[in-house]
Amino acid sequence: MGDTTEFVRLFSPRSIAIVGASSNLESISGRPLKLLKRYGFKGSIYPVNPKYEFIDGVRCYSSLGVLPEVPDVVMVGVRASMVPEVVEDCARLGVGFAIIFSSGFAESSDAEAQERIVRIARAGGVRILGPNCQGLVNLAKGIPLSFSASLDTDRRPFGHVAYVSQSGAFGFASFAMAADAGAGFRYVVTTGNQADLDVVDFARALSEDPEVRLLLLYLEGIRDGDRFLDLLRLTRSKDLPVAVLKVGKSEVAREAAKSHTAALTGDERVWEAVFSQYGVIPLSDADDVTDVARMFGAPKRTRGNRVGILSTSGGAGIIAADACDALGLSVPGLSEKMREEVRHFIPVFGSSLNPVDMTAQVINDPQGFRKLLALMEESPEIDMILPVLSMITGDSGLKMAMDLADAFEIGKKPMACCWLIDDEHGREFREYLSSRGVPVFSSPRRAALGLARLARWEQRPGLPPGKPQAVFSPRLTGKSGDLTEADAKAILASYGVPITRERLCKSLAESTAVAEELGYPVALKVMSPDILHKTEAGIVALRVRDEEELRNTYGRILEKAAKAKPGARIKGVLVQEMVSGGQECIVGVRRDPLFGLVVAVGLGGVFVEVLKDVSLRLAPVDRETVLEMLGELRGLPLLEGARGNPPRDIEALASLVEAVSHMALNEPDLLELDVNPVMVLEEGHGAVAVDALIIRK
Amino acid sequence: MGDTTEFVRLFSPRSIAIVGASSNLESISGRPLKLLKRYGFKGSIYPVNPKYEFIDGVRCYSSLGVLPEVPDVVMVGVRASMVPEVVEDCARLGVGFAIIFSSGFAESSDAEAQERIVRIARAGGVRILGPNCQGLVNLAKGIPLSFSASLDTDRRPFGHVAYVSQSGAFGFASFAMAADAGAGFRYVVTTGNQADLDVVDFARALSEDPEVRLLLLYLEGIRDGDRFLDLLRLTRSKDLPVAVLKVGKSEVAREAAKSHTAALTGDERVWEAVFSQYGVIPLSDADDVTDVARMFGAPKRTRGNRVGILSTSGGAGIIAADACDALGLSVPGLSEKMREEVRHFIPVFGSSLNPVDMTAQVINDPQGFRKLLALMEESPEIDMILPVLSMITGDSGLKMAMDLADAFEIGKKPMACCWLIDDEHGREFREYLSSRGVPVFSSPRRAALGLARLARWEQRPGLPPGKPQAVFSPRLTGKSGDLTEADAKAILASYGVPITRERLCKSLAESTAVAEELGYPVALKVMSPDILHKTEAGIVALRVRDEEELRNTYGRILEKAAKAKPGARIKGVLVQEMVSGGQECIVGVRRDPLFGLVVAVGLGGVFVEVLKDVSLRLAPVDRETVLEMLGELRGLPLLEGARGNPPRDIEALASLVEAVSHMALNEPDLLELDVNPVMVLEEGHGAVAVDALIIRK
Repeated sequence: MGDTTEFVRLFSPRSIAIVGASSNLESISGRPLKLLKRYGFKGSIYPVNPKYEFIDGVRCYSSLGVLPEVPDVVMVGVRASMVPEVVEDCARLGVGFAIIFSSGFAESSDAEAQERIVRIARAGGVRILGPNCQGLVNLAKGIPLSFSASLDTDRRPFGHVAYVSQSGAFGFASFAMAADAGAGFRYVVTTGNQADLDVVDFARALSEDPEVRLLLLYLEGIRDGDRFLDLLRLTRSKDLPVAVLKVGKSEVAREAAKSHTAALTGDERVWEAVFSQYGVIPLSDADDVTDVARMFGAPKRTRGNRVGILSTSGGAGIIAADACDALGLSVPGLSEKMREEVRHFIPVFGSSLNPVDMTAQVINDPQGFRKLLALMEESPEIDMILPVLSMITGDSGLKMAMDLADAFEIGKKPMACCWLIDDEHGREFREYLSSRGVPVFSSPRRAALGLARLARWEQRPGLPPGKPQAVFSPRLTGKSGDLTEADAKAILASYGVPITRERLCKSLAESTAVAEELGYPVALKVMSPDILHKTEAGIVALRVRDEEELRNTYGRILEKAAKAKPGARIKGVLVQEMVSGGQECIVGVRRDPLFGLVVAVGLGGVFVEVLKDVSLRLAPVDRETVLEMLGELRGLPLLEGARGNPPRDIEALASLVEAVSHMALNEPDLLELDVNPVMVLEEGHGAVAVDALIIRK
Repeated sequence: MGDTTEFVRLFSPRSIAIVGASSNLESISGRPLKLLKRYGFKGSIYPVNPKYEFIDGVRCYSSLGVLPEVPDVVMVGVRASMVPEVVEDCARLGVGFAIIFSSGFAESSDAEAQERIVRIARAGGVRILGPNCQGLVNLAKGIPLSFSASLDTDRRPFGHVAYVSQSGAFGFASFAMAADAGAGFRYVVTTGNQADLDVVDFARALSEDPEVRLLLLYLEGIRDGDRFLDLLRLTRSKDLPVAVLKVGKSEVAREAAKSHTAALTGDERVWEAVFSQYGVIPLSDADDVTDVARMFGAPKRTRGNRVGILSTSGGAGIIAADACDALGLSVPGLSEKMREEVRHFIPVFGSSLNPVDMTAQVINDPQGFRKLLALMEESPEIDMILPVLSMITGDSGLKMAMDLADAFEIGKKPMACCWLIDDEHGREFREYLSSRGVPVFSSPRRAALGLARLARWEQRPGLPPGKPQAVFSPRLTGKSGDLTEADAKAILASYGVPITRERLCKSLAESTAVAEELGYPVALKVMSPDILHKTEAGIVALRVRDEEELRNTYGRILEKAAKAKPGARIKGVLVQEMVSGGQECIVGVRRDPLFGLVVAVGLGGVFVEVLKDVSLRLAPVDRETVLEMLGELRGLPLLEGARGNPPRDIEALASLVEAVSHMALNEPDLLELDVNPVMVLEEGHGAVAVDALIIRK
């Protein structure tokens, strides 16, 4: 946190007032004072409460107005109805920051009261944290501005994680549990109702601190998708890992989230797409907060996904190997050369395969474990180390703990240690390892997951492309009414999207001439802005084989159009080449209320209709991103040439999707776009939009 | 453990010898004596070691032969090369059980040495536990027969779980960690190399104990699938829950498992099928052992999957709701009537939705939490209770812990409590809850998973059907060589499997006559036991429209057959009705080396070829089981009538699969069977086998 940032007086205040300070030091309005004293705060503390002269030996004042100076921060613990008055005082005096603990605002549907304090604060230049928050702690400087009991301890779990949580209770509780497990934090900020300052504000500010190794966010929702994306773009450009626990995935949770802090929770699949696109580490549980804070709080990053397992229990080693495999990590067999070296340090009934089963006998060779750790550290066959220890107790256990911590300290490779042991026999080892920064887990799966998250972070995608330069003015603007397929495809074509060869014909004669030119078979489709669902209306004829069939068909589909919607405006009949022999795909765009344009791609038929097998990203997408999207599809083998089919032109599909995304960005009036089907032909033969539907705003 | 079971003298020995006893009480051969004394073993203890006269004050003997009596159990801690001699002594003296801790047998590829001790033991009537095991503990009677340091404690985590683990190190370590978390055990047995007694032997014996509420197994592999299935059938008939941590899921783990205890690890998908079929609770991690032991160790079972969440932190409540949803549990909105009652006990800024957000204010009403728990217990809208508490500390925390434990004690509904709090502030609460049997978790997801496992257990399938009576002698036996499609379908038909109308024709004239009878279009297929892949050989003609086309086709496919495999025996041309308009499915059977006949069902086309979307069960399957199998298919909507198609005859498919499974059971020479495709017609119109391939052993 440089001293230049806008929040310096919030994170490093020289003077603090506590309005509504209570003499009950275990209450919400009493504990902030207790904590400031316990942490040895060096600045001035001004309890404000007309009821007291002193609280816990500290001079107490009757109101903010009578303080000897204007405090940098005011903590507010009075009841909701009295908050506006306090904020008015802050505004009048020129207080920079008010932290409002009080509940009873937007979260209990008194949105009006909340808006009122925001208006007062804005007018007076006061920035507000809360209301309904639990404040913050700056562990870098040892300053607690909170009432959380989790801070009421002698432990100072100082480290490199910046944690910003909308929920005060969850934020501080999960912080405290992570600290138990050895995670270290630099800042914890809880934002509550976010009447003024929100998670994104703090995330942005804290990401400026070069000592922060992980930005950890708990989100119930956000109000401005673009600001969130700007944050992700910023952190991504700094290569600062961001882990997000986004709650409200289920319908019932979404309802609860609304009543909790009155925040929007977006469409879950769009959030997932955003996380994929920006390399955000997704979390879903309290345990995840602990685990990610430990793994990314350490300064180790990996180059690959090959894990070396060293176990004292064959069984536990196998569980770890299974977990690695399930999480996409590799547990490579070791070379014969390395196995030979390994065998020097393990008994004959151990195993020099990977997992290396050292067996409990490893404790009999004072150098054995140390040497095996060094072998793993030095081996070019291994990227990360996963020691799995079982009930090694007493002096032997302590020796192994020390060997582990030494290896961690001098090594460059990430390590996640699993020690399967009860508290009575193993607590001191776990605490020792934690104190030396070694991430230690009580389950092989969690240790493996820790490593898997590092490996995935290593494989994060590049920074998403910026918005392309608009090359010409929007095509959709200024027009009104619905577009026909022919209109839609013409617009697509103008953006470089390959479409079928086709012409809109006004007469039978024109149709037969065009069909002759295109070559039979052709498709005939009646074009009417009033009939968007053509197949259902029966106004499409496919595979028309010759002129005779065309003559028979032409009138029939026009009649059907008249029947399907009497009075429909008919623009003509589209005569179109038939494209066959490709893989049907769909490409679509829709406008998400939170994040804007979302591009979807998937295979046609059962894949989209039955399996919902589509991949999403925000627009724009470049070719590389589209290839990533296709990699997520279960149906990908069909594009790659499964079932005896030739490989399809995946590159052409990628270019087509990229062009569609550029088009969507250049058309502010576009609401939805379906290109369905896109025919993806044999490799080298391209991909082509066969039908398209544009819905205007 | 009734006194009548075959292992009574192992679990309740009157006298115990320790061969190779060491005066180093912290070593493998020293700790067994220490543990027996620490647990106050009442019978006789005979250390055997010629080096000592006394160990730790206990008279030590020079050999088994000079003991004053024949011990019930001999623990063996000598080095591998000396083990045969000890087992010989046991055999000569008539010792009932030898527990062999020594390593260096099959697990280090000295299978011969292991076989030798088994031969000696068998001949002398000695039953062996191990070698390479860590022994057992009978917590019901407080008797440790082990060297595990996990038992070296004053804690006696007595409860209702019987845990049998192949891995000694993992078994005792995970037991100790589960005990830390409050789980209670009745027996822990580790079987190591299982030279004689194995996991299944002990599982069967311990399941006879009516005090056992959960049978918990750690398996690397088994040698006899039928014995394992008999065990599952037995436990299923008693409604005794069985949870299995089956390791060796990944390729690398399978290799490691082989070197670890030399056991077969079967095909993973077949294991999954077995678990589904018998309602086995699948585990995969050390945490799972802890969690399932706590949930099923309690006497509470659920009737449904509706969870009521009571939280002091809105955020944590939402995480719990998300976790419930992801795990298939329901978090129903509460009725207005119930919400009204809830509102009496929560502040206005709380939430009476489910999750009920009590907020931390609940501590201010001494009756509030107690009343809310009672509301949940009594409500017919809720089946299980998930309290999620955050940093409630001091007296308030203790009060809540007591309220929770009281509610748990008198309530009938399962409860999983999540308390998000650090050790310094919350350890005593968690320990208090554990001591009163309340399963308490540090993560909402793990608490929800505990409840989800109970709910899934409630929905366990019925006992799988027994083998059907053989109605006639096998059709495949006694014949030799490969079968044609016509042969295969004839056999299927004889078992009641509907097949296409068809006839094997020897001449063109016969073919045209049959086609006329069946009605065009027809399919023509050359039948040869030497050409099994007909389509690839080009000897199939589909949709033959009339006699003219038949005449042209007949000779052509026979010529192709001659070309595809010169000298192939031609049995004739199968003339078959064309079946169209159904959903293509596949039904198959194969013989698993471990579990025997496995039935597979799936949709045809991309579902089986690209998505591997098939469901497996052991034969026989009844109609109900097939419906369950279909319920697992991603493609199920296609059978139910997605994409504008009519619903298919799912009942007929179920009957067909049932008949196929009966056929397979009645044919000992059958190795593999593919019925592909099965055409599943519109509801009420049946399902029919269109092609079939039988591979004989």
